[in-house]
Amino acid sequence: MSIIFPVLHPVAGIHLGSSAAKIKKNGNTDLVIIELVEGALTAASFTLNAFCAAPVTLAKEHLQAHSPRALLINSGNANAGTGAQGMLDARQTCAWVASELGCLPEQVLPFSTGVIGQNLPMEKLQKGIPEALATLSATGWEDACAGIMTTDLVPKAVSREVIVDGHSVMITGISKGSGMIHPNMATMLGFVATDAKIDQACLQQALTDSVNLSFNRITVDGDTSTNDACTLTATQTAVMPIIDDVTSQAYADFSSAINAVMTELAQMIVRDGEGATKFVTVAVEGGLSSEECLKVAHAVALSPLVKTALFASDPNWGRILAAVGRSGVERLDVNILKIYLGDVCIVEDGGRALNYTEEAGQAVMSETDITILIQLNRGNVNEIVWTTDFSYDYVKINAEYRN
Amino acid sequence: MSIIFPVLHPVAGIHLGSSAAKIKKNGNTDLVIIELVEGALTAASFTLNAFCAAPVTLAKEHLQAHSPRALLINSGNANAGTGAQGMLDARQTCAWVASELGCLPEQVLPFSTGVIGQNLPMEKLQKGIPEALATLSATGWEDACAGIMTTDLVPKAVSREVIVDGHSVMITGISKGSGMIHPNMATMLGFVATDAKIDQACLQQALTDSVNLSFNRITVDGDTSTNDACTLTATQTAVMPIIDDVTSQAYADFSSAINAVMTELAQMIVRDGEGATKFVTVAVEGGLSSEECLKVAHAVALSPLVKTALFASDPNWGRILAAVGRSGVERLDVNILKIYLGDVCIVEDGGRALNYTEEAGQAVMSETDITILIQLNRGNVNEIVWTTDFSYDYVKINAEYRN
Repeated sequence: MSIIFPVLHPVAGIHLGSSAAKIKKNGNTDLVIIELVEGALTAASFTLNAFCAAPVTLAKEHLQAHSPRALLINSGNANAGTGAQGMLDARQTCAWVASELGCLPEQVLPFSTGVIGQNLPMEKLQKGIPEALATLSATGWEDACAGIMTTDLVPKAVSREVIVDGHSVMITGISKGSGMIHPNMATMLGFVATDAKIDQACLQQALTDSVNLSFNRITVDGDTSTNDACTLTATQTAVMPIIDDVTSQAYADFSSAINAVMTELAQMIVRDGEGATKFVTVAVEGGLSSEECLKVAHAVALSPLVKTALFASDPNWGRILAAVGRSGVERLDVNILKIYLGDVCIVEDGGRALNYTEEAGQAVMSETDITILIQLNRGNVNEIVWTTDFSYDYVKINAEYRN
Repeated sequence: MSIIFPVLHPVAGIHLGSSAAKIKKNGNTDLVIIELVEGALTAASFTLNAFCAAPVTLAKEHLQAHSPRALLINSGNANAGTGAQGMLDARQTCAWVASELGCLPEQVLPFSTGVIGQNLPMEKLQKGIPEALATLSATGWEDACAGIMTTDLVPKAVSREVIVDGHSVMITGISKGSGMIHPNMATMLGFVATDAKIDQACLQQALTDSVNLSFNRITVDGDTSTNDACTLTATQTAVMPIIDDVTSQAYADFSSAINAVMTELAQMIVRDGEGATKFVTVAVEGGLSSEECLKVAHAVALSPLVKTALFASDPNWGRILAAVGRSGVERLDVNILKIYLGDVCIVEDGGRALNYTEEAGQAVMSETDITILIQLNRGNVNEIVWTTDFSYDYVKINAEYRN
C-alpha cells in the first residue's frame, strides 16, 4: 500500500500502535491503539442511531466513569447488531488492553467499524492487541490512519500547529468514512488530539460545536451508521495557561482551530465518498431557521435524481428545483427564491432564469467541485452541507461489499 | 412497439384519442385527450411539491370552476419550472381543445409529464390536438396508455367489472411512472374512469382514500415530482341508485373496488421502477402511530445501502437494522422489536436473531418479490410501503436521461 500522507506532527502525550490482526480479509492493518498520557482529558461525540453498536454503548459508559488512558479501534468488524455477546466481547477487549497498560478496563474506550452483525473474532483481537501495543510510538499516526480505514480509498489526516492566545498548540487528527455517511455521525470515526491545556467542559464544547459544523454537515447517502464516533483528546502538556472559559480569546482561538481541522477531515470523507466523482457544496441562504435551511439542503444533497445528474455532469436543473419544491418547508414561496449553479442563476420568478443558457450550466457541471446555492430570501439564517454525486461505482461498491 | 395489454373494457361516456405530436424525441405517441360525457363528475389529487408545474396549477383552478369535459395529457415535456410562460402555454392548449370540442377552456384539465424546465413546443401541440381528437374512440385506452409513458418500460392499465351493492360497474384506469416516485404522488399520472353513479363528495372521498393507500405508499427514489396527478371520473351512466352516502354498503363496495384498481396501478409503477430488479414490500407493524410506522418504512425503503444490497441479493441485514435505528422514531426500544426477511427472523433482542443463518437469508433475498417486516411491538398501527432495489441501471437511466 503506497499512501502519501501529509506530515503528521506528534502530539506530546500521545502514542499510537497498530497491527494486522486479520480481522480484515485483505490482511491490512486493522487494529489501532492510541495511548493517552495520564492527565489527558477526552471529549466524545457519538451516533444517534438507536441500534448503536456495542462499542458505542460501552465507550459512553466508560467515559462516565473515568478519563480514558487508551482508545482501542478495530476495522473490518463493526460489532453492531451483536446483542449481549457484542457487549461482552467489547468489555473483554478493553480488559485485555487495560491489563497490558496497567490501567482500569473503564479507562479504555472501544471503537469498531466494518461489517454489521458478525461477532468480533476474539482470538484475532487477543493476539493483535499486544502486537499493536508493541509498536506504540509518538510517530504512529500514519499507520493508525491506515488501520482505521474500511472502504476508504484515501487516508484522511490533518496536522496543524496553531497559535492559541499567543501559545503554540499542536493538533493532529485522523478520520475514516466513505459510505453510510449522514448526520449525525455516519460510518465515520474521527480521533483528534492536541497538547492544549483545557478543562473538560471547554473541551467538550469545542468538540460538540465543531462536530455540528463539520461531520454533521456531510452526507454521502443519507444513511447514519451504528458506529460513528469522534473523540478530541487534550493531553494538557503544552506550556500555556489553562483554557477554562468559553468566552475567552484563548477558547475562541482553540475552538476555531479545532473547527478548521474537523472541517478538513469531514470534507476529506466526502471527497472519498463511495464512488464519488464530484465534491458538491449545497448552500442554503436566507432561511427562517437552521432547520428549514437544512431541510432544503438535504433534500437536494440526497436526491438520487440530482446526484445522478451531477455524476453525468448534466445541468438538469429541473431536478434541483423539484428537490427544493418537495423539501417540506412550510409556505415556501417559489416566486421569490433563487437557485444558482456556481455563479449561474438557474431559477428565479418561479421558473428557469431568463438569462440561463444550457452552455453556462454545462460549464459549471463539468467542474469537479460544484456549488449549488439556494437563496430562500425569507430570513437571515444560512447553512452549508457537503455531498457527492451518485455513480455506477456507488452501486458496485455497495452491491459487492461483502463479496 | 409491441405491448401486451390486459383487456381494457370501455367505460360508457369515455372516449379517448391520441397522436404522435413529436414532443417526444422518439416519435412515439405523446398526446392524449380523454373526452368525458356531459354530466360526468371528476375528482382529482395533485402533487404537494411547492414547485408544482403549470398544468397542475391550472388543473386545480379549472376544477374549482366547472366539471371537466376533457383531460389533455402530453408526455415528453413537463411544462414545469417554466414560470409565467408555462401558465400561458397551458391555458392556450386548453383553449385549443375546448374550441374543437365546443366546451369552455375551464372544462379542460391539462396534464404534462417529461423533462422539467423547457417550454411546451406549442406548434407541435396545436397540430397534435386535432389529430388526437380525430381518433376519439371508446376503445382508445391502449393507445392512451402508451401515450402517457415516458421512461416507463411497461404500460400500466387495469380494467375490472365489479358488483357494487348488486349493480354491475365498470372501472378502467391507466397510469404512468417509473422514476421520481415518492409520496405524495411522484412523477406519476393516473387516470381512472368508471360508469358508476356517485356524487362529487363520495367520489372525491373514494379517490383521496385510495390514493393514500396506493400511490402514496410507493417509493422508488424518494423524489416527489412537480407534475403528479391522479383523476377519478364517474360518468354516471350505469343503471343503479346514486351513491351519496359514505356509510352505505354501495360506497363501501365502490371504494373497495377503486382501492384495488389504484393499488394494482401503483404496484405496477414500482415493478417498472427505473432499473428495478426487485419488488419489495416494507411492512411495519405494532407502531404507536401511522406517522412513526411510515418513518421506519421509508427509512428502510429509501436507504441506498439497503437498496444496493437488495440489488445484489445480499442478505446484509445489518443495513436494515441500521436504517431502522436511524429512522428517528422517539424512544425506539431496539430490544423488543423484531425484523423479518420473508419468513426468516433476522433481528431480535437487539441483535442478530439466534436462529438466523446466512443460507436462510440468502434464500429470501434471491427471490424477486421480497417482504421486509419490522414489528415494533409498541402499539397497534400497521403500515405498508412498496419499493424497489437500486441497480446500475437506475444510475444509467438517470445519468443519461436527457442525452
